[in-house]
Amino acid sequence: MSARGYVGVVGPSGEPAAEVLAAAEEVGRLLAGAEVVVVTGGGTGVMEAASRGATSAGGTALGLLPGSDRREGNTHLTVAVATGLGEMRNALLVRAVDAVISVGGSWGTLSEVALACRTGVPAYALLGWELPAEGGPVVVADAAEAVARVLDVR
Amino acid sequence: MSARGYVGVVGPSGEPAAEVLAAAEEVGRLLAGAEVVVVTGGGTGVMEAASRGATSAGGTALGLLPGSDRREGNTHLTVAVATGLGEMRNALLVRAVDAVISVGGSWGTLSEVALACRTGVPAYALLGWELPAEGGPVVVADAAEAVARVLDVR
Amino acid sequence: MSARGYVGVVGPSGEPAAEVLAAAEEVGRLLAGAEVVVVTGGGTGVMEAASRGATSAGGTALGLLPGSDRREGNTHLTVAVATGLGEMRNALLVRAVDAVISVGGSWGTLSEVALACRTGVPAYALLGWELPAEGGPVVVADAAEAVARVLDVR
Amino acid sequence: MSARGYVGVVGPSGEPAAEVLAAAEEVGRLLAGAEVVVVTGGGTGVMEAASRGATSAGGTALGLLPGSDRREGNTHLTVAVATGLGEMRNALLVRAVDAVISVGGSWGTLSEVALACRTGVPAYALLGWELPAEGGPVVVADAAEAVARVLDVR
Repeated sequence: MSARGYVGVVGPSGEPAAEVLAAAEEVGRLLAGAEVVVVTGGGTGVMEAASRGATSAGGTALGLLPGSDRREGNTHLTVAVATGLGEMRNALLVRAVDAVISVGGSWGTLSEVALACRTGVPAYALLGWELPAEGGPVVVADAAEAVARVLDVR
Repeated sequence: MSARGYVGVVGPSGEPAAEVLAAAEEVGRLLAGAEVVVVTGGGTGVMEAASRGATSAGGTALGLLPGSDRREGNTHLTVAVATGLGEMRNALLVRAVDAVISVGGSWGTLSEVALACRTGVPAYALLGWELPAEGGPVVVADAAEAVARVLDVR
Repeated sequence: MSARGYVGVVGPSGEPAAEVLAAAEEVGRLLAGAEVVVVTGGGTGVMEAASRGATSAGGTALGLLPGSDRREGNTHLTVAVATGLGEMRNALLVRAVDAVISVGGSWGTLSEVALACRTGVPAYALLGWELPAEGGPVVVADAAEAVARVLDVR
Repeated sequence: MSARGYVGVVGPSGEPAAEVLAAAEEVGRLLAGAEVVVVTGGGTGVMEAASRGATSAGGTALGLLPGSDRREGNTHLTVAVATGLGEMRNALLVRAVDAVISVGGSWGTLSEVALACRTGVPAYALLGWELPAEGGPVVVADAAEAVARVLDVR
């Protein structure tokens, strides 16, 4: 990871379980504390929680939105890029980061984790779906372990 | 599906099991027989087998290549689009088709299946990885069932 | 250009002058006669005329559509890719071809000609806007000259 | 323009004339003073000057890089997105901003100005190439006028 790392935090939009949201927010907070830019899809749910965690800790939350209207991003983003790419922005996110932490599971989340595994971007999974072990994300126990492992990759 | 459908056939590159390759080729052949355009990533393995199946049956094989050089596509493509998008072209493929049939499993394959499930593109899985059932691809027994179900969606 | 070349034909949508449409159709026809795949944005105006020229001559017309609905393409396309990229598909088109022929002028056309010039894709302009000469498209007199010059690049 | 606007500053990379660089830096500085996020392609020349202007004034400079390596961005970026899209990122930039200010001329610059004009993004041109007037960018006399006009669009 370069001097100032960028880490994607991916997970379900909408209203995932409280445990998932709390973990996402802590991941964002811890990454920001390590001066890492937190990159999300800029939406609700895990994306919003991680962004809130990052900016509440004085960090930077970058949102790569699917739509063309920047105002559709959540209110915790430092910088929002309205890509207009729809779900193709999932692939843009994976490319733009040094590592991915997934919190919780959904098909959109899985698309990002799978792309990370496919393209060699280190991936860590917290509270997520069961996936094939070979070449898959490293399963971690909590937010602290996820961030510690990501920082170790540097 | 519109008058002339487009169906993505996705699966591992390289040298997957003979059973996987045979199934991919039959899927391509059957789709072409139904006048469906077969869309793949244009590479080796399942992509090449499905394209060969399609063109050997007089059909059309469209390849959406990750690189910028059209000559990197396999030799069975009717039309090749050198996207230069890298693995972002997986998302382009899912968007451009009416349904996806996966044959075999890999992380790249999973990224496409997951994106299809995320974006409401009907997905059918043959010889693939075990995945969460809810909202996931329909698991099919063989090439004939995969194509029959895809044609039923029309 | 590889064995079977791909050439983009770009120009205004809607209802450009009859002279422009006639030239676009002839460009499409001549390219198809040389076994070149004609690539357009798949829409109306010059895109439709060039596609009609290509397929009426037994050639292949590939359309890279801005929207997500394949049925929005014109009726002369052999293969249509619904990219959902909006005007970003202009850049995809330039990347996917060996050369660009512009017929007529518009801001969208200019974006493609400029991208071609920027990225080293040979560009030929017919009936187009006046542009800076340095590094710009080669201005040609008619469809025959455009196609002859493109084929010469091989 | 939304509460906090995003404006693209586009122009030649490399070593454009001193007058061009000075204008780009002032544009960046003035936009930052108005709390506008300055968006560039993240490279050298005008992109670097505008970014330096923005961050030296305490503002935010967002760079949308063509390559996949964030470290290729200039050193004045607040946030860098390594898109890996090559020159397709020009289209991403135009989409992600509320207005475009071009400083100086080049084919890459022209692709962005033309896309802006094509897609209805207000465009202002300073020290640039002569372009068709109809539907084209508003030609401005200096950095102050460019920024004043952009802020007026809100």
